[in-house]
Amino acid sequence: MSELRQDPVSGRWVIMAPDRALRPNASRTWPGFDETADDPFAEGRESDTPGELLSYRKPGTAPDSPGWRVRVIPNKYPAVTMEPRAAGTSIREEGLFRSIPAAGPHEVIVECPQFATCLSQLPPEHVTDVVRAWRDRLRFHRDQQTCAHALVFKNRGIAGGATLAHTHSQLIGTPWIPTLLATELSRSQQYYEQHRRSLFDELLSAELAHEQRIVTAGESLVTLCPYASRVPFETWIVPTGGASRFEDLAESDLPSVAVALRAVLLRLNELLPEVPYNFYIHSAPFTVAADDWYRWHIEIIPRAGNTAGFEWGGGDNINALLPEEAARTLRPS
Amino acid sequence: MSELRQDPVSGRWVIMAPDRALRPNASRTWPGFDETADDPFAEGRESDTPGELLSYRKPGTAPDSPGWRVRVIPNKYPAVTMEPRAAGTSIREEGLFRSIPAAGPHEVIVECPQFATCLSQLPPEHVTDVVRAWRDRLRFHRDQQTCAHALVFKNRGIAGGATLAHTHSQLIGTPWIPTLLATELSRSQQYYEQHRRSLFDELLSAELAHEQRIVTAGESLVTLCPYASRVPFETWIVPTGGASRFEDLAESDLPSVAVALRAVLLRLNELLPEVPYNFYIHSAPFTVAADDWYRWHIEIIPRAGNTAGFEWGGGDNINALLPEEAARTLRPS
Repeated sequence: MSELRQDPVSGRWVIMAPDRALRPNASRTWPGFDETADDPFAEGRESDTPGELLSYRKPGTAPDSPGWRVRVIPNKYPAVTMEPRAAGTSIREEGLFRSIPAAGPHEVIVECPQFATCLSQLPPEHVTDVVRAWRDRLRFHRDQQTCAHALVFKNRGIAGGATLAHTHSQLIGTPWIPTLLATELSRSQQYYEQHRRSLFDELLSAELAHEQRIVTAGESLVTLCPYASRVPFETWIVPTGGASRFEDLAESDLPSVAVALRAVLLRLNELLPEVPYNFYIHSAPFTVAADDWYRWHIEIIPRAGNTAGFEWGGGDNINALLPEEAARTLRPS
Repeated sequence: MSELRQDPVSGRWVIMAPDRALRPNASRTWPGFDETADDPFAEGRESDTPGELLSYRKPGTAPDSPGWRVRVIPNKYPAVTMEPRAAGTSIREEGLFRSIPAAGPHEVIVECPQFATCLSQLPPEHVTDVVRAWRDRLRFHRDQQTCAHALVFKNRGIAGGATLAHTHSQLIGTPWIPTLLATELSRSQQYYEQHRRSLFDELLSAELAHEQRIVTAGESLVTLCPYASRVPFETWIVPTGGASRFEDLAESDLPSVAVALRAVLLRLNELLPEVPYNFYIHSAPFTVAADDWYRWHIEIIPRAGNTAGFEWGGGDNINALLPEEAARTLRPS
C-alpha cells in the first residue's frame, strides 16, 4: 500500500508508490520508448483494463464493451490505493519520520475510443464529453466522500510523464490537500480577509487592463500566460466569475471550457508539433467553502524544456521566455 | 536583464531570463539533440568561451590557454547577470505584481580539459580539484559579497537540463535565498530552538540506527537515500559533523567529499548507463551564522523518470522506488 512520507529536513511530502514500478514502460522513460507500440485503451480492448467506473456510450451497449465515447477506469498501477475509509489522514510518527497512509482513488479517463495523442485532435463536442467526465467523477468523489481533494491532470508525451500515448487524463484523490493547492488556498483566503475582494477578480482585472499577457478574453473565461510563468508558454484558463470548485460547473458551462482548452492545445501543437505537456485543474477541496476567495482554473505546462539542478536544488524555476512574448505568440491573429 | 517575479496566486518566485533562450540547443531539448556534437569546453578552445575566473593549471601556462585541469568561466548565457551592486534585493511592486532584479554571478566550472560526460570518469584526485573549485568560488563570492547565497549544481544529460555534454557544473549567486534552502534553514533552526540539538545530528543518528537507508557510512561523511526520496535512487551525502557552509571546508576535507560523490555517480552509471542526473550543494547563506543547526550536504537526483501532471499540479512527488530498496541496490556488496 502507498504511503505519504515527510522529509524531516525540508518538510516536503512524497508519495511512496512501489506498485507504480510495475507499469508498462515505467522503467523505460529514459532514454525513451515507443509509447504508441501498444494501445490497451483502444475500443475493443475493454477486457485489457479494469472494469469501467463511468462511460458515455451508445444506448443499448453494455459496460466494458465497444460503443463508448469516453470511458473512466481505475488505474491498474495506482499511486494511491482505495482502502476502507479507516486509513483517514492519521499521521504515523517514528521519531523524526512521519507518514500518512495514501488511501484514495486513482482513475484514468480514456478520452476517445480511437487512437489520438492529444485532446485537441477531437471535435469540440467530444472534448465537452471529456470535461463532463472530469466534472462527473469529481461529483462522485465529493458525494461518496472518498477523499478530501481530487486532482484531475493530464500527461502528454514521455517527457510529460506519460507511459501510454492514447490520449487520457487521470484523477488522483488524496486524504490531504496537495501542497501547491493548499498554498494557493491560504494565500487567496488571506487576501480576501485583508481586502474583502477576490484575488482572482483582482488578478483578472489587472491582467485585462495590462493586456500583454492575455491570449483570449471571453465572456466566461480568460486565457492568459501568468506573470510569473514557470516555463515557456505556461498558460492558464481562469473563469471570469463563479465557483471555487470545478464539480459545480453546470451543463451549460462545459462547452466553453472545452473550446478554450482545445484552442490552447491546438495552438501549442501548431507551434511545437507533438509537444509534451501537462495540465491540471486547481479546484477547492470538497469540504472547504471557498467561493468568496478561490476560483477553479486550469494550468497548462508545456514540457519542451527540462528542469535542471537549479530548480531541483533551489525550488525556483528559470524561464527563458517572457510571458508577454508567449501570449503574443499564442494569441489568435 | 533578468528579474525574479512572484506569482500573485501561489506566491512562488520565478527567474525570467530571456537571454537564456540564446543558448546553443536551448530550443532543442525536446525531442532531443546530439549534445556531444560540438565541444566548446575542450582544451585548446579557450577563446570560444569568456575569459577564465579561476583555473588550476600547469605552472608557467597563461590564463585562457591550454594546460589547465579545472577551469571556471562566466556563463555566456546567464540566468542572472552581474550588475553593479546597486540592484540589491529591493522589491518592485506594481499592484499585485512583484519583482526583484536578478543580479548575481552565473559561472561554469569546466571539470576537465578532455571530453568526458560524468565526473565519475575522472580519477579521485581530479574530482578533488573540482570540489576545491566549488569551495574556492564560494569563498570568492562570500569575500566579495556579490550575493546572499550561491548554489553550486550540476546538470547531466538532456533530461537533466544540460545543453552541453562535456562534464561541467555551475554556480548561480542570488540576492535572495533559494526557496527550498530557506525552508530547510527555518525548519532546522526551529528544531534547534525547540530541542537544543542539531536536526542533522538527530537525523544521522536515526538513519545509522535504522541502517536500511544507509549506502555507506564513513568517518566524516554518510551517504544515504533519504526517507522521503522524491525520485528513484535520490541520494544525499551528509557530513557527520562540522560546518553549515561548504566554503568552510579545509583542504584536508576535500578528498573524502570527492571520493564519496564519485562513488555514488560510478554506481549510478553502472546501474543506469549514462543516466541523466542533477546534484547540488545545500549550504548556508554567506551572512547567516547557522553552524549550530544547519549542515551543508549534497543531494543527488537521478532523472531516469519524468515528473508529471500530479507533481506540477500538486507539488508532491510520487516515487515508485522505496529508498530502502534504492539503498540496498546502491550499497557496495
